[in-house]
Amino acid sequence: MGTDVSPAWIAVDWGSSNLRAWAMDESGEALARADSERGMLSLTPAEYEPTLLEAIGAWLPRTGKLPVLVCGMAGARQGWREAAYLPVPTRLDGLARGAVRPPLNDPRLEVRLLPGLCQRRDADGRTFDVMRGEETQLAGLVARESGFSGLACLPGTHAKWARLEAGAVTRFETFLSGELYRLLASQSVLRHSLGEDDLDAPGCREAFVAAVREAEAAPEAFSARLFGLRAQDLLDDTLPTGDARGTHLMARLSGLVIGLELAGVREALATLQPVTLIGSEALCARYALALQALGHAAQRLDGSAAVLAGLELAHASLSD
Amino acid sequence: MGTDVSPAWIAVDWGSSNLRAWAMDESGEALARADSERGMLSLTPAEYEPTLLEAIGAWLPRTGKLPVLVCGMAGARQGWREAAYLPVPTRLDGLARGAVRPPLNDPRLEVRLLPGLCQRRDADGRTFDVMRGEETQLAGLVARESGFSGLACLPGTHAKWARLEAGAVTRFETFLSGELYRLLASQSVLRHSLGEDDLDAPGCREAFVAAVREAEAAPEAFSARLFGLRAQDLLDDTLPTGDARGTHLMARLSGLVIGLELAGVREALATLQPVTLIGSEALCARYALALQALGHAAQRLDGSAAVLAGLELAHASLSD
Repeated sequence: MGTDVSPAWIAVDWGSSNLRAWAMDESGEALARADSERGMLSLTPAEYEPTLLEAIGAWLPRTGKLPVLVCGMAGARQGWREAAYLPVPTRLDGLARGAVRPPLNDPRLEVRLLPGLCQRRDADGRTFDVMRGEETQLAGLVARESGFSGLACLPGTHAKWARLEAGAVTRFETFLSGELYRLLASQSVLRHSLGEDDLDAPGCREAFVAAVREAEAAPEAFSARLFGLRAQDLLDDTLPTGDARGTHLMARLSGLVIGLELAGVREALATLQPVTLIGSEALCARYALALQALGHAAQRLDGSAAVLAGLELAHASLSD
Repeated sequence: MGTDVSPAWIAVDWGSSNLRAWAMDESGEALARADSERGMLSLTPAEYEPTLLEAIGAWLPRTGKLPVLVCGMAGARQGWREAAYLPVPTRLDGLARGAVRPPLNDPRLEVRLLPGLCQRRDADGRTFDVMRGEETQLAGLVARESGFSGLACLPGTHAKWARLEAGAVTRFETFLSGELYRLLASQSVLRHSLGEDDLDAPGCREAFVAAVREAEAAPEAFSARLFGLRAQDLLDDTLPTGDARGTHLMARLSGLVIGLELAGVREALATLQPVTLIGSEALCARYALALQALGHAAQRLDGSAAVLAGLELAHASLSD
């Protein structure tokens, strides 16, 4: 991060537990990147500006203002300043219209916090839901293909599935999958039977795929199949022994949790193809495998590339 | 617990976290009760006998042997001594045939550990499952009605549903409901939105019942509805405010978890009526309310009465 970086603006993805910033030139190219481990969960409102300056101070001009566009939890009610959720349907090329400006001390900063999206319960089957940060990754899809329509999935702690029509999010659902998986693996009675998470271990892809199919076909049995992992550990002579046993059962747990999630989007999957997965390579590969097991095609967009493209789209819309 | 108690035998329910013992006379009446907070999770094999003597020592005769019949986790592999699972179908009046005798130092003790039940995956849709302790409560049903047939539910951390035919368990399933509920309420992102568990609070029974119906009707949406509790907290203007808000959402969480469980036994519920609930008054009342919401009748058998009747049945079968 040299002082020779002179960006036209700064793109920031500021989440619950960290911050990623990019120094951007006018053409939308990232000149440099800065990270911080300080996210919304560890910051009071007054600490955001110093934290930002610490991360990107070297990029600031001697004079004049540098635009900084921020997506993510920094715009939450418990963040820097609240950027109120935009209700769906929302066109993703218009996110910047809902941006708010936090109070600042440094005259060289011009910060905008992008809003998240919300959804209320309605007669069409939508339920209460919120996202903050993921909407900018979805905007990245629209940045790459104006007027994008289709089904997108952002796997993770709280996995989001969004339907896009002509560049707008029309409906979305969040699944607690990542959190369920982590809690069950580390805190429940199942922890005694579970081992390493490694789908590349012998037989584990097959175990994962079988569990995906089971849970998708019979979501009502989810809670019983969870306990079944424990019982299978105690009873099943066909399972591998030693460490491989726990690895096998861990693959099954992952498959059950993702299979339940896929049962929840069965209707959307039946009509909207392929699914665009946005996220890390490993997690998207796991979801692609699960989708493939159910006969669905998937394509991947890198999570960092998506958020950067989304912030770029929002930045461009400011100058329109 | 006076020294004037001279029981004919001792009934013991020895679980993961505690021990309950009853001094029994020949007619099957409990003369006295003793408790200990030392269960399987806190005991090494060598510690069982001293722990038992501490609890029931005052009841031991000066000479002769006192039979002690134990059900529960004391008979697990990681307990006092393993009493191997009996595979279903198993007649519940024959549990004592699978009992094992642990090594003892005190010549006045004659201890038998009752076995649990296990189930293997088969073509009829059974899956791997185990129970240890609950089979004795189910035996209590048979003790009260010889040749009992029907559907029984033992709600709790790991809720068991068992089908009985002519006094035998033919099939059972365990749901991780209680543990899921506790983990989600205390460890997940939902904890920020949840409050007291109190179905007697205004509107909470209705919220619970609505959530039971939602989850039973659409189990595939379970994981999304969990996150929906968080989103509802952020967005729903019709919810009560203050502490009542968290209490309302807690009732919904309980309803979602129990509703998912009831979806899992939908087929059995359609043909086997009424359900016999075995357990504490409060938890059985909650399950009865959930069942009633779906049009199913329930009756209750107290958990302690059930285990005692089951141990009595096992004791009687020893003298046959």
